[in-house]
Amino acid sequence: MTNTQVTLVQIDNYGPWTVTPEPRREADLQTMQSRLFADISQFVGNRGGYTFFTRFDNMIAVTNGCSLEDHALLQESIGNRYPVSLSLGVATGTSPVQALSDATERLQDAGSAQDENRRECLEGRAIADDYRTGDDVQIAHFDVVNATGNYTDELNAFDTFIEIEQGYAELMRHMRYAHGSLSFFVGGDNVIVVCPDLERADYEEATAHVAEAVDVEMQVGVGRGKSAHEAGYDAKHALETCRADGTRVELEWETA
Amino acid sequence: MTNTQVTLVQIDNYGPWTVTPEPRREADLQTMQSRLFADISQFVGNRGGYTFFTRFDNMIAVTNGCSLEDHALLQESIGNRYPVSLSLGVATGTSPVQALSDATERLQDAGSAQDENRRECLEGRAIADDYRTGDDVQIAHFDVVNATGNYTDELNAFDTFIEIEQGYAELMRHMRYAHGSLSFFVGGDNVIVVCPDLERADYEEATAHVAEAVDVEMQVGVGRGKSAHEAGYDAKHALETCRADGTRVELEWETA
Amino acid sequence: MTNTQVTLVQIDNYGPWTVTPEPRREADLQTMQSRLFADISQFVGNRGGYTFFTRFDNMIAVTNGCSLEDHALLQESIGNRYPVSLSLGVATGTSPVQALSDATERLQDAGSAQDENRRECLEGRAIADDYRTGDDVQIAHFDVVNATGNYTDELNAFDTFIEIEQGYAELMRHMRYAHGSLSFFVGGDNVIVVCPDLERADYEEATAHVAEAVDVEMQVGVGRGKSAHEAGYDAKHALETCRADGTRVELEWETA
Amino acid sequence: MTNTQVTLVQIDNYGPWTVTPEPRREADLQTMQSRLFADISQFVGNRGGYTFFTRFDNMIAVTNGCSLEDHALLQESIGNRYPVSLSLGVATGTSPVQALSDATERLQDAGSAQDENRRECLEGRAIADDYRTGDDVQIAHFDVVNATGNYTDELNAFDTFIEIEQGYAELMRHMRYAHGSLSFFVGGDNVIVVCPDLERADYEEATAHVAEAVDVEMQVGVGRGKSAHEAGYDAKHALETCRADGTRVELEWETA
Repeated sequence: MTNTQVTLVQIDNYGPWTVTPEPRREADLQTMQSRLFADISQFVGNRGGYTFFTRFDNMIAVTNGCSLEDHALLQESIGNRYPVSLSLGVATGTSPVQALSDATERLQDAGSAQDENRRECLEGRAIADDYRTGDDVQIAHFDVVNATGNYTDELNAFDTFIEIEQGYAELMRHMRYAHGSLSFFVGGDNVIVVCPDLERADYEEATAHVAEAVDVEMQVGVGRGKSAHEAGYDAKHALETCRADGTRVELEWETA
Repeated sequence: MTNTQVTLVQIDNYGPWTVTPEPRREADLQTMQSRLFADISQFVGNRGGYTFFTRFDNMIAVTNGCSLEDHALLQESIGNRYPVSLSLGVATGTSPVQALSDATERLQDAGSAQDENRRECLEGRAIADDYRTGDDVQIAHFDVVNATGNYTDELNAFDTFIEIEQGYAELMRHMRYAHGSLSFFVGGDNVIVVCPDLERADYEEATAHVAEAVDVEMQVGVGRGKSAHEAGYDAKHALETCRADGTRVELEWETA
Repeated sequence: MTNTQVTLVQIDNYGPWTVTPEPRREADLQTMQSRLFADISQFVGNRGGYTFFTRFDNMIAVTNGCSLEDHALLQESIGNRYPVSLSLGVATGTSPVQALSDATERLQDAGSAQDENRRECLEGRAIADDYRTGDDVQIAHFDVVNATGNYTDELNAFDTFIEIEQGYAELMRHMRYAHGSLSFFVGGDNVIVVCPDLERADYEEATAHVAEAVDVEMQVGVGRGKSAHEAGYDAKHALETCRADGTRVELEWETA
Repeated sequence: MTNTQVTLVQIDNYGPWTVTPEPRREADLQTMQSRLFADISQFVGNRGGYTFFTRFDNMIAVTNGCSLEDHALLQESIGNRYPVSLSLGVATGTSPVQALSDATERLQDAGSAQDENRRECLEGRAIADDYRTGDDVQIAHFDVVNATGNYTDELNAFDTFIEIEQGYAELMRHMRYAHGSLSFFVGGDNVIVVCPDLERADYEEATAHVAEAVDVEMQVGVGRGKSAHEAGYDAKHALETCRADGTRVELEWETA
């Protein structure tokens, strides 16, 4: 049984800040956002977690292994180094979607994302170390079959991007509504999906669905672990098996 | 008439590097990619351009105001500070899509994105200073009407993301195939679109199309300028007018 | 009794890299070095340690609270994101100077700093958690009395810098040879000193020595803790007392 | 005749900020300072200038090639991305020390470094493009002869640092008072010196002085150029000649 710990990271009152007193230079906003994400990714990643940039002003992280004290330290450190501050909602559960809903609700209860009086909230609970197990996190790492040969080296860069984006958009909706999973584009042609306890047949169904719906062929490696890093690292190895053997679905715990 | 200068920024042989000799830690890849993007965004942004992260291993920039010497310096500076190197294709034209196609073709002609012998290519031409005009770039800045009230403060963070992503996916395809434009999600609920010489009716058609197709209400401010920054800055101001007045399309040159 | 854990961080074969095949742009080297330091400072700082930039190619850190696994993770993460790699020597002891000597020797035994075959060494031992105590680290935080009023707002910026640098150079040598301590300039007019078990009289002697030798008036706050952060944070509070009360030496454990 | 353009970069009201409302975590301050420096170094470096971290809260840059508009853009960009803001004083002259004095005075006239009402000042003048010449900047790049063999691989890392620091401290004072030059430690065993129109005999005298005063052997390459980068790049090449040929002073314009 999975027990995913999910953190919603929300920049406090960000929209208004970007246009006060005048709209700020777009290149500066892009730089600031992506460095903020990078710093959070390092902090969480050094403790075994994964952070996804999502909308940048709202990031989603899998934080099994991070205590509430760790979350508070992250908040303090960002507050010391950036012109914006973070609110964090943390929740856990067998369903990643449900955990994220709970985490979101905790922040929404504390105030609007554009409430200037809601600052640096930290709400929720983390899994105590004694309760963590090697099945807590299930990660699926998808990519597009032969994306470089079929797209990058053939189409113009934007049409390639449309193809990959279309595959992602379909996969994200399908994994959300059919399988209770959270899918994130992570660059190139890669999508990382945070899953509940899914099985081989679920992944076969998902890749078949995307191929039929938008004609994008995907392959997927899946791993389990105590943390996102452990699960995701196994998923990467499983995906390497797909690439080497030409298979479409590999579950690390079946092949290992 | 627009004359957009587009640069395709491609990390050399990146896919293979990420799994050699073993898959690298995902958090490190995410950190490295987003900081690389941030640095390019600063460099280009300091010269009036816009950079979009796109797929991270393939980024697209509007570089009116950057000479080929500037491009070479960017390449050198990144090569000195990162474990990866960049190839750059540059092209210009009245159609942003055609300019990007030309830029892409120049890199494809130089070798595959995964050819380990193709390193730090710089191909193409920039617009000479004497030929630059105040109409060269047209930028449209879209966002979702009342995204915070309708989505962020109501749905869980992933379902909000799905809504915004769906609006983006539809807009991106429509603007590409109906209007020859390049659309990029830039965080929050914002999409920046690099356009040829479009008119009010085109933008009204586009927002109506997205509303009908996926039920996401968008508003848009549009600007023109000698550089992406100038055009984009005007677009931001026009979008502020939408927000203040409740209108759906504002062209800065009509209201100014 | 202090038990300081010291890590020597050495960039592998850095000198030759900076001029191969041609000298690299100085601004790029400066940027790369200072960001590398910043990343190490965050990683170590998030675990309660302090990192000092020292010579940049050789950095010194107080790492009580960082295991060898943490050190290995830092090494891996930097290796994934920078064009250079790190070797790390770790040692502990009641004397910070002796601990650093041991840490240095471990790296020297593994090979020259400019041996191209010595890469990513990790040598030494960390203090096991059970053996850590609240007296392990003693940190003294010095600054120059009224530096802004006496120097920054009066002299040109370089002559101010010379005054502060002169105070630092004298303090560093004196604390090293008279008190077995490691002193690091950390910006502004601040010097942080990693000390063995010193007492009030030692600090009074040190500030008197510097005042007499180079005519720079300094004040100092001192703290103790299980980690550099804890000791250093107490030292900062003690220094605030100096600033408020006009005293020259404050030991947090006497005033608390 | 040299005509050095010098910029004093001062963080506004920084000291008070670091302890308000409580002292901030030292690791965060170190990270923030060094990244701020890195960003300024990139911005100025991309336009041919050099930036020196100096005291971090007061940095000194050689900015030939940067207009006042560039300075204003740097100020705006940093203000958009950091929790602190910058004031900038700019001045030019045949003597680097005099130029820095003038730049400092302009900021001092605008208010104290700790005046909370003095924010984002930009004072002074830049050299108009038409007046720039290939002799405007003279840069000398010093390092310690065989520092790795004599120190790094032999002494503990702190004692090596003391030796190099002592060489630097002596050189900095001597070059300031005997030769009107500004010397900056830039990492490793390297010192970069911004000079007026000095000659071979001056550099021979300086290295001899340091060797006699503190027993540290240094060598130096010197270059001239329109910008710090051009002069500094020539200086690096000249220093490579010292290393290859065992000479102590090389002036690029004599050997080229």
